[in-house]
Amino acid sequence: MTKTAAIIGGGVIGGGWLARFLLNGWDVNVFDPDPEAERKIAEVLGNARHALPMLYDHALPKEGKLTFCATMQAAVQNADWIQESVPERLDIKHKVLSEIQHYCPKDAILGSSTSGFKPSELQEKSDFPDQIMVCHPFNPVYLLPLIEVVPSVQTSASHIARAKDVLSSVGLYGLHVRKEIDAHIADRFLEAVWREGLWLIKDGIATTEEIDNAIRYGFGLRWAQMGLFETYRVAGGEAGMAHFIAQFGPCLEWPWTKLMDVPELTDELVQTIADQSDAQSGHKTIRELERLRDNNLVSIMRALKQQDNAAGSLINEHEKTLVSIQKPVGKIQTVTRKIPVDWTDYNGHMNEGRYGQVFSDAADGFMLAIGADADYIASGNSFFTVETTIKYLVETHAGEDIVVDTTVNLAEGKKLKLSHEMRRVDGTVLATCAQFLLHVDLDTRKSSDPVGAVATAIAALKP
Amino acid sequence: MTKTAAIIGGGVIGGGWLARFLLNGWDVNVFDPDPEAERKIAEVLGNARHALPMLYDHALPKEGKLTFCATMQAAVQNADWIQESVPERLDIKHKVLSEIQHYCPKDAILGSSTSGFKPSELQEKSDFPDQIMVCHPFNPVYLLPLIEVVPSVQTSASHIARAKDVLSSVGLYGLHVRKEIDAHIADRFLEAVWREGLWLIKDGIATTEEIDNAIRYGFGLRWAQMGLFETYRVAGGEAGMAHFIAQFGPCLEWPWTKLMDVPELTDELVQTIADQSDAQSGHKTIRELERLRDNNLVSIMRALKQQDNAAGSLINEHEKTLVSIQKPVGKIQTVTRKIPVDWTDYNGHMNEGRYGQVFSDAADGFMLAIGADADYIASGNSFFTVETTIKYLVETHAGEDIVVDTTVNLAEGKKLKLSHEMRRVDGTVLATCAQFLLHVDLDTRKSSDPVGAVATAIAALKP
Repeated sequence: MTKTAAIIGGGVIGGGWLARFLLNGWDVNVFDPDPEAERKIAEVLGNARHALPMLYDHALPKEGKLTFCATMQAAVQNADWIQESVPERLDIKHKVLSEIQHYCPKDAILGSSTSGFKPSELQEKSDFPDQIMVCHPFNPVYLLPLIEVVPSVQTSASHIARAKDVLSSVGLYGLHVRKEIDAHIADRFLEAVWREGLWLIKDGIATTEEIDNAIRYGFGLRWAQMGLFETYRVAGGEAGMAHFIAQFGPCLEWPWTKLMDVPELTDELVQTIADQSDAQSGHKTIRELERLRDNNLVSIMRALKQQDNAAGSLINEHEKTLVSIQKPVGKIQTVTRKIPVDWTDYNGHMNEGRYGQVFSDAADGFMLAIGADADYIASGNSFFTVETTIKYLVETHAGEDIVVDTTVNLAEGKKLKLSHEMRRVDGTVLATCAQFLLHVDLDTRKSSDPVGAVATAIAALKP
Repeated sequence: MTKTAAIIGGGVIGGGWLARFLLNGWDVNVFDPDPEAERKIAEVLGNARHALPMLYDHALPKEGKLTFCATMQAAVQNADWIQESVPERLDIKHKVLSEIQHYCPKDAILGSSTSGFKPSELQEKSDFPDQIMVCHPFNPVYLLPLIEVVPSVQTSASHIARAKDVLSSVGLYGLHVRKEIDAHIADRFLEAVWREGLWLIKDGIATTEEIDNAIRYGFGLRWAQMGLFETYRVAGGEAGMAHFIAQFGPCLEWPWTKLMDVPELTDELVQTIADQSDAQSGHKTIRELERLRDNNLVSIMRALKQQDNAAGSLINEHEKTLVSIQKPVGKIQTVTRKIPVDWTDYNGHMNEGRYGQVFSDAADGFMLAIGADADYIASGNSFFTVETTIKYLVETHAGEDIVVDTTVNLAEGKKLKLSHEMRRVDGTVLATCAQFLLHVDLDTRKSSDPVGAVATAIAALKP
């Protein structure tokens, strides 16, 4: 695999796919005849470059090469993954898929971003249906991990398996949908909620802002981490899920039957929604709202990462593939990362306390490099930090790429003194840290000398 | 107002209300004839004591007094707020409300936790309907801020206004619903989504776990911070909300019409859901799932707090009412708080870097105490931290209550040296920090002497 992706259709969705591949080290070819495509993609890519690397506590791979192609052939002929994100009309999709398949490798994955059509509908006019599947993403594609992978019976099992592997490798989660269905899974929920929202506005029960508050101050917080059914399982308590349904089913049934009508999207209703939305958010530009949304998402997803749960577990799994442990020779690069938005104050400066975090991470990186890893700790040995002195030299901002180099200043028996230097990638030293650690026997909880390969590795690093 | 709440019905919902009031310093009377009530409430209160204080970077007020009452009269006769959370049957609600009103003050707020009934239905048999309103919370009530405040035309405006004030004062958000309606606002969405979920399971499209993943890896993350309409406003881009609806309305209309049926809750479907839920979450007890949910919610809400957005803005607003600035005399208590779960590693130990955070917060607290506040910074003056030395003495765990005392070691012109001592409330010293700061003129970006009242305050603290 050459790790080349072709993006066919470069709007907000296509641009999001592009950013996801490019920032994970893939080369990306774009084909979109829209003269505005390059500008639109630059905007999405700008947002993605700001936000996606902030999810991780380690730098992403070097960006791949981005090529705007004049022809469909140039874009797809060498691609491993081709993602179609053209407008939501079946005749257009058929035409574009046919042209793609005229030029693309037969073993390439051909994913469609359609939010409504079934894969069998997309495959109707194709001579090679086995490579076609729905890969339905969620905006912003460069942050949200969910991809609904919907094959038809004609899609080949090997293409499906490879698609899921590729998605994981770029930090996405391929949710394999068992049977094809209109609107897949998530959009059925979104449409149901959208319909209820329209009724509430039409009937004057609530404004767009009140509805958004009803969601984000309540069940939205629950759903971000557990979804629907596990939330109800917890609410039901020890009696179990069947009991919960038995208890709440009957009293919920009656209002359900009132919610079946579809409100007509009259001009008046559309205008009401637009006016309410302006009153709610019109004081911010779309660019500002995008940045606000992305900063919130980064912070929420990093919070779940710290809990190693829900979407945060996916990030941790992906991050493991980014870390390569250096062979310890002299100076060791122990941290390489971007400063995330949840580390900064309202001015965008890194909080004083987070310098301590960076140097704590540097010590962790050093420990991995000398082999003082989880196995070493499980064997009853560890280093405890006793004292750190940090000198703050230059202000640091959200979005900056930094590295930390670590050297050993002293290694005598149980004592270890490390010196960390935090730099911008341009070389500017931002802060330094002197760290004093003691080796500890975790059984006796008393200081002790390092053992085995760790002792050898430290000896080799002594000044 | 005596800050006394009466909780009528002490299940998961009543217990959550109880915890919210109690942990915000209210005295709480409980009336629930269930012999298990005391045990059930202890469980909810245990979870709440773990989680709620972690949302804040400042300690909550001293807990109020909790009293289990033998009679309705004893519970409600002196209450400012009475919250009814009895089973969801109108005849029971009428009987309980009537008994409450027989004994309670006429100016007390009488809120019902009903998720389905309209306030006018609750008021049907009442001689004093003006004090009755729906105050519909969301589980876990001790963490989620949303309360749907639904009055009828008979509810008095002064009761409604006071209810919203009280809710804010205990960190809740009263969403005033403009017109009464079955199931209020949020539950209409929950029911719509629940119905679609049942269909997906019945039709074999997805399992409970797959549905939960479709939510929590995708739109659940969006909804936790922006809700539905602002999310779509952003997705629609510069063209605006009306354009978005015009573009997406038609292609969404067709699948909508397929989603109108109500699935019958047959025994078979109930069993399928229960089995799938067991396969998904059965390896964890409900207690474990509650703790997992609460830790996730605390972390997500603290992430939004750091962004000062969505539910996090509500916490910041509430926190402002908790902080009292001390008059600076000798030793100043600059931090008083609980260690939150997002500050700890998988063993529950506080991360090394977070000690730096605590001492950075201590310096902030000191600055407020000497008057070096936002106005002082706006006038072009500030202190920058140049160097910190932290000594780590004792391991610290999530959930521990800590304080930091700060003393001035040196104050000479532009130079300021602070000494911070971090202690458990039992007195154990956990860590110390020596901090060297320089006063800076923010215009010239050069060091300078403190000015005005700040200079005077520092001089008074010199050793």
